[in-house]
Amino acid sequence: MNTLSEEILGAPAGSYVDRPVDRAYVHDGTGVLARAAWEEIGTGRFTDPDRKYLIFDHIVPANTSVTADLQHELRAFARRTGMQFHDVGSGVCHQVMAEGRALPGEVIVGADSHTCTLGAFGAFATGVGATDMAGIWATGETWFLVPETTGVLFEGELSGGAEAKDVALAVVGALGMDGATYRALEFAGEGAASLSIADRLTLCNMAVETGAKTGMFRSDAVTRAYLASFGLDTPLQPGGTQRYSAEISIDLSAQEPLLALPPRVDTVCPVAEKEGLSVDQVFLGTCTGGRYQDLERFAAIVRGKTVAVRTVVVPASRAVLLRAAATGVLSDLVEAGCAVATPGCGPCLGAHMGVIGEGEVCLSTANRNFRNRMGVGGEIYLASPSTAAATALAGAICSPEGCQ
Amino acid sequence: MNTLSEEILGAPAGSYVDRPVDRAYVHDGTGVLARAAWEEIGTGRFTDPDRKYLIFDHIVPANTSVTADLQHELRAFARRTGMQFHDVGSGVCHQVMAEGRALPGEVIVGADSHTCTLGAFGAFATGVGATDMAGIWATGETWFLVPETTGVLFEGELSGGAEAKDVALAVVGALGMDGATYRALEFAGEGAASLSIADRLTLCNMAVETGAKTGMFRSDAVTRAYLASFGLDTPLQPGGTQRYSAEISIDLSAQEPLLALPPRVDTVCPVAEKEGLSVDQVFLGTCTGGRYQDLERFAAIVRGKTVAVRTVVVPASRAVLLRAAATGVLSDLVEAGCAVATPGCGPCLGAHMGVIGEGEVCLSTANRNFRNRMGVGGEIYLASPSTAAATALAGAICSPEGCQ
Repeated sequence: MNTLSEEILGAPAGSYVDRPVDRAYVHDGTGVLARAAWEEIGTGRFTDPDRKYLIFDHIVPANTSVTADLQHELRAFARRTGMQFHDVGSGVCHQVMAEGRALPGEVIVGADSHTCTLGAFGAFATGVGATDMAGIWATGETWFLVPETTGVLFEGELSGGAEAKDVALAVVGALGMDGATYRALEFAGEGAASLSIADRLTLCNMAVETGAKTGMFRSDAVTRAYLASFGLDTPLQPGGTQRYSAEISIDLSAQEPLLALPPRVDTVCPVAEKEGLSVDQVFLGTCTGGRYQDLERFAAIVRGKTVAVRTVVVPASRAVLLRAAATGVLSDLVEAGCAVATPGCGPCLGAHMGVIGEGEVCLSTANRNFRNRMGVGGEIYLASPSTAAATALAGAICSPEGCQ
Repeated sequence: MNTLSEEILGAPAGSYVDRPVDRAYVHDGTGVLARAAWEEIGTGRFTDPDRKYLIFDHIVPANTSVTADLQHELRAFARRTGMQFHDVGSGVCHQVMAEGRALPGEVIVGADSHTCTLGAFGAFATGVGATDMAGIWATGETWFLVPETTGVLFEGELSGGAEAKDVALAVVGALGMDGATYRALEFAGEGAASLSIADRLTLCNMAVETGAKTGMFRSDAVTRAYLASFGLDTPLQPGGTQRYSAEISIDLSAQEPLLALPPRVDTVCPVAEKEGLSVDQVFLGTCTGGRYQDLERFAAIVRGKTVAVRTVVVPASRAVLLRAAATGVLSDLVEAGCAVATPGCGPCLGAHMGVIGEGEVCLSTANRNFRNRMGVGGEIYLASPSTAAATALAGAICSPEGCQ
């Protein structure tokens, strides 16, 4: 049986294929570059604008005059081309796409490395460069080298304080930052069915941190139920045992809360090993850890208490924010002392909304922790939303079950 | 009968007095400068830390590494001195002080020009320089030249689409940007009793835009009821007819919605005269227009509809945000397409969270519209929250009662 990449791209691993693109998106950062490249191509052809998306998420609302000028020009470009435009406050591009704009079997490209997030729906979803995107705008298609696949086989179910983010860190720790370069990760095994779409999005999101081209789950009953909530009818992708060219196995029931230590995402250790390490900021948000499920878990821990360090919360999308407002989760977070900011990428890329200072330590639910990512001279520990909540209350790194 | 400034400062207008300061506050911007000046004084004496406040509002959460470093140092300073510290997400300093931290008869100084906002409680509240603040930290007192007073006498009650912000613009338009330099504005007359504390805060806030040292309302039943909600017992300040050295009269019942045109706050005209002028951004927030009452009025207009231009909403404080979340106002705003950001000053000073681009036009509920205030080459029209809401829906300047 073929791998999911082979099925979708219609050719065996190792082949080069030309494929129409079902959806393509850019954000306010890469949109600027893609537009410049598209102008240079000069044909004036912009294909299928109803399947092309411009989603403002990286620096929203604008942080400087330069940013504001660039965004102003991009808005005019969106109007001119007729592409689908989501202005400031919509959310992280990957999350906006995950809300009913990605379907099993589709080929989806985004001018952002974490486009692999959408593999959670059984799509072949991957990041492309901004100049590739310009070509895709103009022609509606692109080429791929069909990747080899590493199977990540789950057994058991998550329990205790462990979450999908911990599993994602375990995967990155096991494979290393270049352990799956230009491969696909296919998340499968009997344990896969127990994972929610939010879990799957987080797992696929961090596939790129192993060098992988994408991470994928086959579409199943969970996918179907989720997409039905957007009125979408979903094809299933029944899978049996696959023959992967590489495999790792993870027992979800034995997963413990993990940290990625600065400055490498693949330097992973149990939270328990660093308990008590003082932090200056906690950040809950991003395409890895800013979904409703993440805010809800965080709120369950901080409800009725007060955070001991500044805590920035950035819902991943408008829909996440609205749901959190409706259920009281938002109020719980604000009452506990969190600073809630506009949906988008927030301080993940160090551009605004919670940049950290020299020597400061941030415990973040995001996906990257390299040197200076969130501010010059700051250090980033990556962890799950529950670990972030426990840490926010303690003012120091702490396991979801409480510090020792 | 003496003016309220004379009563509180205990001397006739024109006198120089030394007075203990009841409360003193700085924000993340001026706090940096005040701290440097205080270190230079070198006594190490920091008086009454429970009456000194450090409130982070200008650039929160931090927008750059430099900002983050400065805030990191200020946090350590607050811990060392024992002063009252409000970290990111608390709100605009003037609003945080207005929530039970300002009482009638007090002398309150803040290292920010809009400290006059707190005159709404019958306090003598005024802005001081950061080096003055360092002296106040060290000694607990400062000197004042008791100001002459301009009476602003209200009759009637607001009705229709007009709000306190429109009255504030009328006052600034009538007096001009230097029409009350180093004077106090005392808001009085039979119409004053009809104005809520939120209204009074907005009116006192904009006193400084006429050059005034402060704006003031005598404490009355409205003040008493508001402060009682914080468990505070409030002295009344019964006033009769005052002899002011200058006076203007305003009929609240005849007030119409106004705009301040760029780039001068005192260039005021009816909203109706500019209807249809296209805008790129609407901004609801600040110490002038970001209180719960403002968000509620805005929401009443946009509820169930969708804004036509990007709209940034920044609640003035955590308490405002919590109340808006509890009543559904926040959800109304987000559902209508607004981008809600962290409580604080937001883009008012052009540092982040909605900077406007070259040639862009912003309709703002803030208090200043000089050239480049919110971004190089952008233009700012100042108006009320209701005018902002109607404009957001239309994508062009529009009266609260709807565009013609």
